[in-house]
Amino acid sequence: MTGMSRRRVFGLAGAGVALAGAGAAGAGIDRALGSAEATTDVVPFHGQHQAGIVTPAQEHLHFAALDVTTKDRAKLVSLLKTWTDAARRMTAGREVGASGAVGGSPAAPPSDTGEALELPASSLTLTIGFGPSLFDDRFGLAGRRPEALAELPAFPKDKLDPARSGGDLCIQACANDPQVAVHAVRNLVRLGFGTTEVRWSQLGFGRSSSTSTAQTTPRNLFGFKDGTNNLKAEDPAALDEHVWVTAADGQAWLAGGSYLVARRIRMHIETWDRTSLEEQEQVIGRTKGSGAPLGQQAEFDPVDLHVGGAGGEPLVPVDAHIRLASSESLNGAKILRRGYNFVDGSDGLGHLEAGLFFICFNRDPRKQFIPMQKALSAKDAMMEYIQHTGSALFAVPPGVSESGYWGDTLFEG
Amino acid sequence: MTGMSRRRVFGLAGAGVALAGAGAAGAGIDRALGSAEATTDVVPFHGQHQAGIVTPAQEHLHFAALDVTTKDRAKLVSLLKTWTDAARRMTAGREVGASGAVGGSPAAPPSDTGEALELPASSLTLTIGFGPSLFDDRFGLAGRRPEALAELPAFPKDKLDPARSGGDLCIQACANDPQVAVHAVRNLVRLGFGTTEVRWSQLGFGRSSSTSTAQTTPRNLFGFKDGTNNLKAEDPAALDEHVWVTAADGQAWLAGGSYLVARRIRMHIETWDRTSLEEQEQVIGRTKGSGAPLGQQAEFDPVDLHVGGAGGEPLVPVDAHIRLASSESLNGAKILRRGYNFVDGSDGLGHLEAGLFFICFNRDPRKQFIPMQKALSAKDAMMEYIQHTGSALFAVPPGVSESGYWGDTLFEG
Repeated sequence: MTGMSRRRVFGLAGAGVALAGAGAAGAGIDRALGSAEATTDVVPFHGQHQAGIVTPAQEHLHFAALDVTTKDRAKLVSLLKTWTDAARRMTAGREVGASGAVGGSPAAPPSDTGEALELPASSLTLTIGFGPSLFDDRFGLAGRRPEALAELPAFPKDKLDPARSGGDLCIQACANDPQVAVHAVRNLVRLGFGTTEVRWSQLGFGRSSSTSTAQTTPRNLFGFKDGTNNLKAEDPAALDEHVWVTAADGQAWLAGGSYLVARRIRMHIETWDRTSLEEQEQVIGRTKGSGAPLGQQAEFDPVDLHVGGAGGEPLVPVDAHIRLASSESLNGAKILRRGYNFVDGSDGLGHLEAGLFFICFNRDPRKQFIPMQKALSAKDAMMEYIQHTGSALFAVPPGVSESGYWGDTLFEG
Repeated sequence: MTGMSRRRVFGLAGAGVALAGAGAAGAGIDRALGSAEATTDVVPFHGQHQAGIVTPAQEHLHFAALDVTTKDRAKLVSLLKTWTDAARRMTAGREVGASGAVGGSPAAPPSDTGEALELPASSLTLTIGFGPSLFDDRFGLAGRRPEALAELPAFPKDKLDPARSGGDLCIQACANDPQVAVHAVRNLVRLGFGTTEVRWSQLGFGRSSSTSTAQTTPRNLFGFKDGTNNLKAEDPAALDEHVWVTAADGQAWLAGGSYLVARRIRMHIETWDRTSLEEQEQVIGRTKGSGAPLGQQAEFDPVDLHVGGAGGEPLVPVDAHIRLASSESLNGAKILRRGYNFVDGSDGLGHLEAGLFFICFNRDPRKQFIPMQKALSAKDAMMEYIQHTGSALFAVPPGVSESGYWGDTLFEG
């Protein structure tokens, strides 16, 4: 009965009837209960590129960085295969193991932890990355480290917490239901027990950038539309230029992959909230209401960095965020942003601990993220209101074929 | 133009057109942009009881405990009036201040922080509570402290973090969009600057209990349906008996109110996940799949604590969670549960920091929550897998009239 869906089990037995017997029968069951959504909210796992990069940004994030605790390469490869199979299942809305949360032996721990039972796939994507530290002497990968995969340099005003930085591996889980994203990370972490452990983890909500022209531009916790000029899924030529690594870039195993930069950016929202509307708009370089660039009328009007005001000063100030981050100021460099807002409780000093968990994908951080962040950290007026408290860089391998596994081009090539 | 909705402004001006002028005109604007949802997802703020108690549990929580930093009673009362007006506006899907995020003077900070612009009301509810410490000698309230509003006793195996416990005030924000809940708390905290500060704050997701018969029972991070036998909005007689305080209970100002207990419960999910399905079901007292009580067929079958198995032992074990928490074992005591699941990053030891942010409402914690928690902390088999790391108790004043304010019966009576 492998492949029978939980929907069908319920359909046969009648909704609300106890699952007696369904457990034993339920190998390969879907989680969702007859929701029409369940068939339409699955993002394909296989493909040339990993999902979760140009996939229209979902509403919720659970990001985990892990360290590998074994020195046994075979054990690591075995875990990557296990993870890939688990990811195939969970992104399809299925339980992580064949016997699921209730279908195994009562005397054994269930193969799925169960908290996503009845929940649809929720557009879950799982995206893996490999940190620079994975390419040390433990796994024989030193010769396969791309030159671009080096620790990020220190930037001015960084205040990085080592407990929120780095990692041998990362898993980015995005979904339209946070419980589905949390379930996925938790079950992968569980499968990694004895091989990996969680180094740090971050939840996020309210996607801070859209990655598709079909999405409206969301607002960050400064209250501004964020990511208006982001690269979009509908512009494959730009993605080829700015996101996807090619074999000619250096390491053939990474062709079709990308680099993920994660920066935990604490926002000093209390200070920001005491700033005038005019100052806020000057810092960003856009109007707060419509999101139009200063000097323009509507959100998607092209940014004009040269248009001057009455006094001759540029309407987009010299230290405005959108000027310094613009491709025009960065020799054409662009990135694909995919971050999320966060609130992590309070800071012990009477304030909310809130900000932006910045994620971007780029083809070569040395030419894209690093020069951008150098410019921003040195000159951006916004730096007065933010602090980077976590940082990590990962090489994101290409997509997986139906017979492949995460990282196969790295380990098998 | 007070009262003109943002929807209408956009309707007149054409969607996507810059908001030039709308800001100045936009006193009292709604946030949402023409979504049909915006008119149907408003939970009324006024009423006999505060919203957010029997309101069908929303998907997301932002809970904040605050301390009052002034000793000036008038300043505190003034803030409660300001907060009430802000809550009226935000729960209706409007911006927090009359001028909103973009409608004020460019030289002044906006009255709304802006991150919820374009988002509908999202069933936002805001619920306030007063902690025991508010009734000390600062505000002349000592004589009005209900006897039931005393610090909770220490329970066996508590490992409470003072930085996650207590508070003079609490604000519970629930909404179907986390950004709306976060926006509401953030703006109330902002209005309290100089009068209150955040003591601790907690985000939650995936409501761990339903509070209406119209809702399905969600699952907690142990993977079990949680709150099957919860009190429900549709049973007003039970709510009168177990949730709503009456004047005869002692302090007339609290009539129509309740007591909110918050407990941050860390779950040792890694240990749990290594436990057999049978053991998990014995700990809970229900089957994992259907949620049926052990010995029964379907989730909502009545729990029978006496039915015995083949060996004469009760099918619901003597240390099962549902037995110890049952009203039958607690002289008829029941509570209204309204908690949320949480993941707060990782614990620095390789694990996710995850669990249940337990919230319940009850009429007298001395007769309901406290005896329940005494029984659970002493005998519940689940205690092996959980640890209480935060705790707070608040008296929740009654609902507010259209001319009243949060706490008026306490401060004016």
